[in-house]
Amino acid sequence: MPDQSSPAIAILTIGNELLDGRVRDTNASTLADLLRARGFVIESIATVNDDARAIKDALSFLFSRTTCVLVSGGLGPTSDDLTRDAVAEFFGVPLQRDPNVAAHLERFFAARKRTMNATNLRQADFPLGAEVLPNAQGTAPGFTLCRASHNQRIFCLPGVPHELLHMCTAEVLPLLSKYFQSLTPQVTGMLKIFGRTESDVAAAIERIVLPERLHVGYRASFPEVHLTFVSPCGDSESVHAALNEARAAIGSEYVFTEDPEESIEALLVKQLKATGHTLTCAESCTGGMIAGRITSVAGASEVFHGSIVSYQNQVKVDQLGVSASILDRHGAVSAECAEAMARGALDKFLATYALAVTGIAGPSGGSVEKPVGTFYVALATNDSCQAFRYFFMGSRGRIRTYAATTALDVIRRALAGHPLRNGTPS
Amino acid sequence: MPDQSSPAIAILTIGNELLDGRVRDTNASTLADLLRARGFVIESIATVNDDARAIKDALSFLFSRTTCVLVSGGLGPTSDDLTRDAVAEFFGVPLQRDPNVAAHLERFFAARKRTMNATNLRQADFPLGAEVLPNAQGTAPGFTLCRASHNQRIFCLPGVPHELLHMCTAEVLPLLSKYFQSLTPQVTGMLKIFGRTESDVAAAIERIVLPERLHVGYRASFPEVHLTFVSPCGDSESVHAALNEARAAIGSEYVFTEDPEESIEALLVKQLKATGHTLTCAESCTGGMIAGRITSVAGASEVFHGSIVSYQNQVKVDQLGVSASILDRHGAVSAECAEAMARGALDKFLATYALAVTGIAGPSGGSVEKPVGTFYVALATNDSCQAFRYFFMGSRGRIRTYAATTALDVIRRALAGHPLRNGTPS
Repeated sequence: MPDQSSPAIAILTIGNELLDGRVRDTNASTLADLLRARGFVIESIATVNDDARAIKDALSFLFSRTTCVLVSGGLGPTSDDLTRDAVAEFFGVPLQRDPNVAAHLERFFAARKRTMNATNLRQADFPLGAEVLPNAQGTAPGFTLCRASHNQRIFCLPGVPHELLHMCTAEVLPLLSKYFQSLTPQVTGMLKIFGRTESDVAAAIERIVLPERLHVGYRASFPEVHLTFVSPCGDSESVHAALNEARAAIGSEYVFTEDPEESIEALLVKQLKATGHTLTCAESCTGGMIAGRITSVAGASEVFHGSIVSYQNQVKVDQLGVSASILDRHGAVSAECAEAMARGALDKFLATYALAVTGIAGPSGGSVEKPVGTFYVALATNDSCQAFRYFFMGSRGRIRTYAATTALDVIRRALAGHPLRNGTPS
Repeated sequence: MPDQSSPAIAILTIGNELLDGRVRDTNASTLADLLRARGFVIESIATVNDDARAIKDALSFLFSRTTCVLVSGGLGPTSDDLTRDAVAEFFGVPLQRDPNVAAHLERFFAARKRTMNATNLRQADFPLGAEVLPNAQGTAPGFTLCRASHNQRIFCLPGVPHELLHMCTAEVLPLLSKYFQSLTPQVTGMLKIFGRTESDVAAAIERIVLPERLHVGYRASFPEVHLTFVSPCGDSESVHAALNEARAAIGSEYVFTEDPEESIEALLVKQLKATGHTLTCAESCTGGMIAGRITSVAGASEVFHGSIVSYQNQVKVDQLGVSASILDRHGAVSAECAEAMARGALDKFLATYALAVTGIAGPSGGSVEKPVGTFYVALATNDSCQAFRYFFMGSRGRIRTYAATTALDVIRRALAGHPLRNGTPS
């Protein structure tokens, strides 16, 4: 295969069990992960049954878009393993038995005192011209085959996940690196955003001028938006510049991290440690979700004392010292109640910050003044206590998740010196 | 589309984020599961980038093998959402703005006090002749389009997973059932199991004799195992008989529901309401996850008072009355501490049941006697208090999830009259 400037690779997974629901296909994503880590781009993915016509149709589709296809599955000994046959037909060559592989299979069965039958020997058949890829962990070897006239190369690997993984790493990646000598690993940059919608972010990005050949991608990872810039030619400077421009256009207060692996709660634990602060919570409508997310971070116990889930009003009175008159006059879903909850939690747990949330997650309990989706977040320190009102329209589950993330974002903003404000986002 | 004897459907998922590694594609398997449950066969699956040429190539491939394709993704408002355009080109029709959808979008934005920009209106454009499929949970409607001359029908749905799930169920399945009139709905039965591994369940099922033509499926939905029986010819009696035999073989105490939509926390809230009991929690290593899950159930406030997240030891002493001597002698991760936490929570919240969890979620903090993954669950009533020891090997996240589910299962068992016991499962 000639040197390629854009090393895009397609993946084909083959097997009835992948389509009839018996097995979740993890092979495509395993291969994609391995290839991307080496700088390859995944062009497309297809999954078909053990059916020679389907395999050939899929190869036509995939090779119409790229020069290199990785295949997993259908290399076993049984009559429904048709990958060898279909690939040979697609490339227009006959199958030929490899005597070394046949001898190896005979030794394999002899060593295990098992009888080898004729169907097992099918695993020694390969399309003429194929290079055999040894399988150190199973009986089915793989192979690679090139049709120079069509600028097509195929790699066929077994579908057993651990065999596939090992062979891709040990056999395929070194060969690919040889074929694609010009390979430059692509560079990716990410902004994780909370408090602006996907279309807000898109509108902000459309106003800035990005370098050519920089791909921009948006993804709503509820309730966050993740913005990525990818330079396929490995230009890290333009990715860096684009991140800075995007951050300014979106509003840097909305960007909580550039680290794809960092959650808002992990960032918060890091901020608390760095500033020597500690945190406690009082949760009503989020019912423990905020504490659950903070304690998902290893090492959270250094900065997180604990929390009171005050789901019923009596618990707000008994455990957090919210006065009956606040509940009577303003209701449990009010700025006053949120502030009293935060102060109560601060008193109880002796932390430097307390966060409280109260709201109406629905599906019932709303009113005209305070519809379902209304919630308050209060943040208390020894010197101050402030509450903010928010509204989010959606299902019970999404309102709760949104409220929990908003609360985490309130203290993230406070610790980072960003403004705190009421909000009625998406 | 004419009546089909073999209702085979292909799936196309579209999105750069699915191929560049930012997102694991779960949409294809979600759609496949829903379709299979209604008796459809999945013919093939493809995934391509947000690229009009790639989308059209994939449609050519998929329609070469079936008459019906379901598409997810690429219906958003941004310039990289190209599904509408590519499908219109593939079917040879222009795009046309739907005034009702445009008006709906305007109302949607007005209700949220957000400005609608021109790109949002792209979501009101559809290929000429398309039938709009309403999206009750987001701004991007879907559509279906038929080209009778080619015997082709396409359904296009948004890529946001919960919108996709809802629209497939509410809009696509009823239409498919209409188009494929010869379809015999398959009958599916499910057992949701906690406390036995997938291979335990499989071994138990292998010992019973199942009627022919009944498919059995196992799915590990961590930390649960879901067992399904499917009769493709709609034989509900044999599904019913198989469920009963399977329940006996597995041990009925491990089966918490037969309702595919019912979570263990929803079942627990139902049990508490039915028996007139109320619940409170004291959580250490689960850090609020148990309370968070219980309060995810609408109406939980009737039976759930609240909870104390006692993440630090001092909080266990101050808030739950765990004695310093228990912590000194037995440590925070002990049956004694779990029991004291449960009693403390019961006193504080005046519920009829209190559940407490304490354990070592890791990654550090383990010892030879109490390795990472050791946890205790205590259940207290006014008359009794009992603690149980468990061990689960895995990541911090999986240990916490396993511990939270185990705690919910302890009270589920108590309310159902099943035995409570120590456990060292999978």
